[in-house]
Amino acid sequence: MPAYAVGHKVPDSDSICSAIALSYLKTTIGEETLPARLGELSPETLFILDKFGFEQPELKMTFADTDGIYVVDHSDRIQGPDDIDDTTVLGIIDHHKLGDITTSTPLECWIRPVGCTNTIIKMMYDFHGVEIPKNIAGAMMCAILSDTVIFKSPTCTTADIKCVEALAEIAGIEDYKALGMEMFTVKSSVEGTPVRELVLRDFKDFKMGDNVIGIGQLEVIDLALFDEMKADLQADIAAVKEEGDRHSVLLLLTDIMKEGSELLVASDDAALVEKAFGKSLVDGKAWLDGVMSRKKQVVPPLQDAFA
Amino acid sequence: MPAYAVGHKVPDSDSICSAIALSYLKTTIGEETLPARLGELSPETLFILDKFGFEQPELKMTFADTDGIYVVDHSDRIQGPDDIDDTTVLGIIDHHKLGDITTSTPLECWIRPVGCTNTIIKMMYDFHGVEIPKNIAGAMMCAILSDTVIFKSPTCTTADIKCVEALAEIAGIEDYKALGMEMFTVKSSVEGTPVRELVLRDFKDFKMGDNVIGIGQLEVIDLALFDEMKADLQADIAAVKEEGDRHSVLLLLTDIMKEGSELLVASDDAALVEKAFGKSLVDGKAWLDGVMSRKKQVVPPLQDAFA
Ligand SMILES: [Mn+2]
Ligand SMILES: [Mn+2]
Repeated sequence: MPAYAVGHKVPDSDSICSAIALSYLKTTIGEETLPARLGELSPETLFILDKFGFEQPELKMTFADTDGIYVVDHSDRIQGPDDIDDTTVLGIIDHHKLGDITTSTPLECWIRPVGCTNTIIKMMYDFHGVEIPKNIAGAMMCAILSDTVIFKSPTCTTADIKCVEALAEIAGIEDYKALGMEMFTVKSSVEGTPVRELVLRDFKDFKMGDNVIGIGQLEVIDLALFDEMKADLQADIAAVKEEGDRHSVLLLLTDIMKEGSELLVASDDAALVEKAFGKSLVDGKAWLDGVMSRKKQVVPPLQDAFA
Repeated sequence: MPAYAVGHKVPDSDSICSAIALSYLKTTIGEETLPARLGELSPETLFILDKFGFEQPELKMTFADTDGIYVVDHSDRIQGPDDIDDTTVLGIIDHHKLGDITTSTPLECWIRPVGCTNTIIKMMYDFHGVEIPKNIAGAMMCAILSDTVIFKSPTCTTADIKCVEALAEIAGIEDYKALGMEMFTVKSSVEGTPVRELVLRDFKDFKMGDNVIGIGQLEVIDLALFDEMKADLQADIAAVKEEGDRHSVLLLLTDIMKEGSELLVASDDAALVEKAFGKSLVDGKAWLDGVMSRKKQVVPPLQDAFA
């Protein structure tokens, strides 16, 4: 039985590309490892896989029948495989706050405060002295451009920028920023997509105190794309909140050119959300100037408010 | 305010030497960091500090007034500073199973399934391209020889052996095995030491289910050293169990030459301990042939038995 590398539920490009890149690395050094995904892929991720000639990783929800898993791009139980206790966590590669996964045996954790898991995977390739194939380098590079919003996110570090430059050279891509914009244009095509699909496209649940808070984010090159559908999005996050017994559901509509986000809120206690961001909601909405990162600018103040 | 590097309660040589080595590395790369200790040092650790000319790290139990902490040689809340929630965990460097420390901000984790935290700290020096001073290399080397029982422990990996060889060269030590035996001879001098001090010398609490299990270990070059005091040790682990509201207290008397351990048990449910090791206790004792590692050979079967 092989091991698997698996990212979080509602997989984003970082989760998928890091599972692919890590599997190749591990297999190359003698530990057979396959990439898996916990859900359907976004148009952005499909664009990356198509661009560099990859198949979609296997859709696989349970891992009891494996030799163990490498958890990538998360360390919260709620975001990972439901049967994580029935397998061995061999390692965690991540760039978020440390979550509540625990193990009963020693493991390998590469966690760094950088903008993207793939920046850390590159360090692992360097550590093991394994050459990164051209197409894997391209996919890793796109994942970093996605997670760092082409370096505009406050989560972006110099390590991420240097890593993109090195990967672009390996992949033979001259204008990586143009490729990044092409990717975000694909990501921005929201018309014709069912509202629920948009709400859940990049959606993560967080445990704060005893509450579950769902936070979705849509990054587009122009916020005006949402003008027609904002009321529908608001109605739908209220529905997602009820269906999942959540305390709150937040949806960030991020304008990557204006560098800020409109926040849509459905909550049992909206005042708590207002307190977290020091902003009044008007019709359940607020503009958060400069806010581009869920991880760095949205989760921590909420966590403080719920503490 | 500086940051601190701090190991587990009842500090062993790995906790102290890795706090010292990490503090030097972090300070060198521009993040002022000081080593701290959560308790009194063992004769073995004092021998190492004396040998390489180090002062004892500051005895410091609370960290709310610091810039944050690097947690070394553990990742279980129960083993670390009691006020961990009042400071920022900047990073974890460890070689045990992943414990229950969580954070609200991204951090740096270097966790590897190797024999000693200092083997990982050496990787960090290499990553940052920082030269290890002679005396720090010597202390790191001794910590690895201690944790791996001069390479005899099943936790020892080729990475640990290579690391010791590299550190011995930096420190200018020709016969590191002789130094290791000298260190274990110091560790073996138990006569004249109060029984309670011996029980707690290398003692860790583990949460298993809802129970607290305390496990101590004494490594000596000859088990006969305990012949006179075994009854007193058994009486005292029973007392430690009661005083700390623990489900069980186990004491491993490890003979590093015979490569096995005598297990002393005080438990609310000794049958569970017998089940864990597949061994009957006679007068609360059992010989476990080949068992040298608490982490790898004692904690996992107990955890399974308590699951
Ligand atoms: Mn990511
Ligand atoms: Mn250790």
